[in-house]
Amino acid sequence: MKEVVAGVDIGGTNTVFGLVDRNGSIVAENRINTTSYPEVEDFVSVLTTSILKLASGVINIELKGVGVGAPDANYHKGTIELATNLAWKGIVPLASLIKEKINLPVAITNDAKAAAIGEMIFGGAKNMKDFIILTLGTGMGSGIVVNGELVYGYTGFAGELGQTIVVPGGRACGCGRQGCLETYVSAPGLVRTVLYLLSDMKEESLLRRIAPSGLTAKLIAEEAEKGDIIALKAFDYTAEMLGLGIINAATFSSPEAVFLFGGLAQAEDILFNPVRKYVDQHIYPIYKGTIKILPSAIPENNAPVLGAAALAWKELSK
Amino acid sequence: MKEVVAGVDIGGTNTVFGLVDRNGSIVAENRINTTSYPEVEDFVSVLTTSILKLASGVINIELKGVGVGAPDANYHKGTIELATNLAWKGIVPLASLIKEKINLPVAITNDAKAAAIGEMIFGGAKNMKDFIILTLGTGMGSGIVVNGELVYGYTGFAGELGQTIVVPGGRACGCGRQGCLETYVSAPGLVRTVLYLLSDMKEESLLRRIAPSGLTAKLIAEEAEKGDIIALKAFDYTAEMLGLGIINAATFSSPEAVFLFGGLAQAEDILFNPVRKYVDQHIYPIYKGTIKILPSAIPENNAPVLGAAALAWKELSK
Repeated sequence: MKEVVAGVDIGGTNTVFGLVDRNGSIVAENRINTTSYPEVEDFVSVLTTSILKLASGVINIELKGVGVGAPDANYHKGTIELATNLAWKGIVPLASLIKEKINLPVAITNDAKAAAIGEMIFGGAKNMKDFIILTLGTGMGSGIVVNGELVYGYTGFAGELGQTIVVPGGRACGCGRQGCLETYVSAPGLVRTVLYLLSDMKEESLLRRIAPSGLTAKLIAEEAEKGDIIALKAFDYTAEMLGLGIINAATFSSPEAVFLFGGLAQAEDILFNPVRKYVDQHIYPIYKGTIKILPSAIPENNAPVLGAAALAWKELSK
Repeated sequence: MKEVVAGVDIGGTNTVFGLVDRNGSIVAENRINTTSYPEVEDFVSVLTTSILKLASGVINIELKGVGVGAPDANYHKGTIELATNLAWKGIVPLASLIKEKINLPVAITNDAKAAAIGEMIFGGAKNMKDFIILTLGTGMGSGIVVNGELVYGYTGFAGELGQTIVVPGGRACGCGRQGCLETYVSAPGLVRTVLYLLSDMKEESLLRRIAPSGLTAKLIAEEAEKGDIIALKAFDYTAEMLGLGIINAATFSSPEAVFLFGGLAQAEDILFNPVRKYVDQHIYPIYKGTIKILPSAIPENNAPVLGAAALAWKELSK
C-alpha cells in the first residue's frame, strides 16, 4: 500500500484536489467548482465525496490525511475567517467540517504559507531551517520559516510582508493605508509603476498606446524582453522595492534563502538579476552574501496542491 | 543546596557578573574592569577566578552553568566577532575559553537577545511564545521570540530591527546606509529629531540655548515633562517612527507584546502613549488591538546580568 494525503487548494473559482505521496508525486487529481456551492456544508459534502471517490479509483493506496490551502485561513483554529473572495460568510470551521466526513487528520493554512511548506517538503528548501517565500501575483503573499517552523504568531496571521509599509505616505493600498510593499511588487503594482514612469519619462513606448485599464504585468514583461525602456525601468524599480523588502526581512530572521513565486517571478532575468544587485548593494553589511534569491523549485501549476499536501505530511510527521 | 548560574554582562568599560537562582534572585554580584585586559585570555582568567571566588563565598549553593551577554556575540558559534567596542580583535571563542576554566555549560548571546530571554524567563513575557523586545539606548537593539524560541536565523545575527530601513533615502546611519530605524528611535536619534524641529519650527525653547553637541535624550525628556513644545513634538515623532517599526514587525511575527527597554523607554507617558496611539491608528487591520506595548518588567540595573543568567537557565532546561 502506498500512503498518500489529499492536498486541497480552495480558490475563488475552482477547488483543485490531488492525492500526493511522500515524494511529492501527484497520483491523481480532480477539481470542483467553488462558486457552485454558496453553502459551505454542500461544498464540504461534495469535496469529501469527490476525494474519497478519487482515492477509491487508484489501487493500492491508503489515504492518511487532508491538507487545505485557502484564502484567509487560520491554521491555529482550522477556520476560514471573513474571506473576501469566497461566498461563505463569517468564520467557517472548515477543518472540523471536513473531519466529520473524512475521519483523518485535517490541517488548513493560507495559500502563501502552503507554498512555503511545499517548498520545505518537496522543493528548494528541503534542508533549510530559515527561509522566506514571497508570492508575487495579484497581491503579495509571504510564508516565513524560522527554526524549521512556519511563523504564525500570536494571532495565527503572521507573515503578511506585502502589508509592510516601505514608503511612508506612499501609494494608496487596498488595506486603507499607504506605502505597503504589495502596492509596488505585485502585478498591479508593476502596472502602477509603468503609469508613473509614463508620466515621468519621455521615451517612446508601445505601452503609451494601451489604455491603463488594459495594461497587464504579462504585457509589460513581453515589452521588457523586447527592450522597451519604460518596461525595463519598471522592472528595475519593482526589483529595487522587492530588494528593500528582502533587506528589511533579513534584519528580522536572517534567512538562508528568499524564494520568489507567482506570475511576476516568471520574469526571471529582468527581475531576479536586479533584485540580487539591489540586495547586494543595500543590505546591512553583516548579512552581505548570506541570502540566496531563488525561483521556487515547485512547478507553478502544481504548487497549490503540493503545498496543501505538504502541510498534511508535515502535520502527520509531528 | 540552591542551584545558581553565573550571568555575565560584558560591556566596553565594565564586566558585571552575578550568581542568579531559578527565580531570578541575584545571590551575589561583582564586577571587573573590561578595559584592564587587552588580551582576552587574561580577561577570561580573571573573570572565571572571580566567579568561582564569588561562588565560594556563598554557603550552600551549586554553580550549574554560565550565561554571557556581550556585544557582537554569535550564539551558534559561542564567539564574539569583530566587536567594535572591545579591545579583543577578530573572532574570539569566548564560550570555549570560559569552559576551559569552568567546566560547565556556557552560552553566549548579544545584549538585546539576552534582554529578550530575561523577559521570557524572569519578566513580563513568562507565558508568551511570540514577543519582541526593543532596546532603546545609544543604538537600537532587538530580541525576537517566535514559537517560544529566540530568532537567530541562518547567520546567527537575525533580530537587528534597528537596521530596518523605514525611510528610503532618509537619515544617514552609522552602517553607511540611509533611513535605518535606529537613526530615529535611539537616544541620538531623538537629539537629531530635536535639531530638525529647531530648524522647522519657530517656537521658543530652552533647547535652542544648548549646543547640539551637549544635547542629550535625558535633557530633552526633562524639557518635555515641563511642557516644552519642541521636546514634546520630538517625542511624538520618535513615537511615530517607533510605531512604524512595530507595525512592520507585526506583519512579520504578529507578536503578543512588544516590550520597550533602555534609556528612552524610561519616558513612560510621553513615549508609550503616543506609540500606542500610532500603532492603533496605522497597523494592518487584522492585527488591530492584538499587540500589547509594555515597559520591560526587569529592573534596568539588573537586566543585563539577569538576561545572561536567563540564557544559562534556558540552555540548562533543554
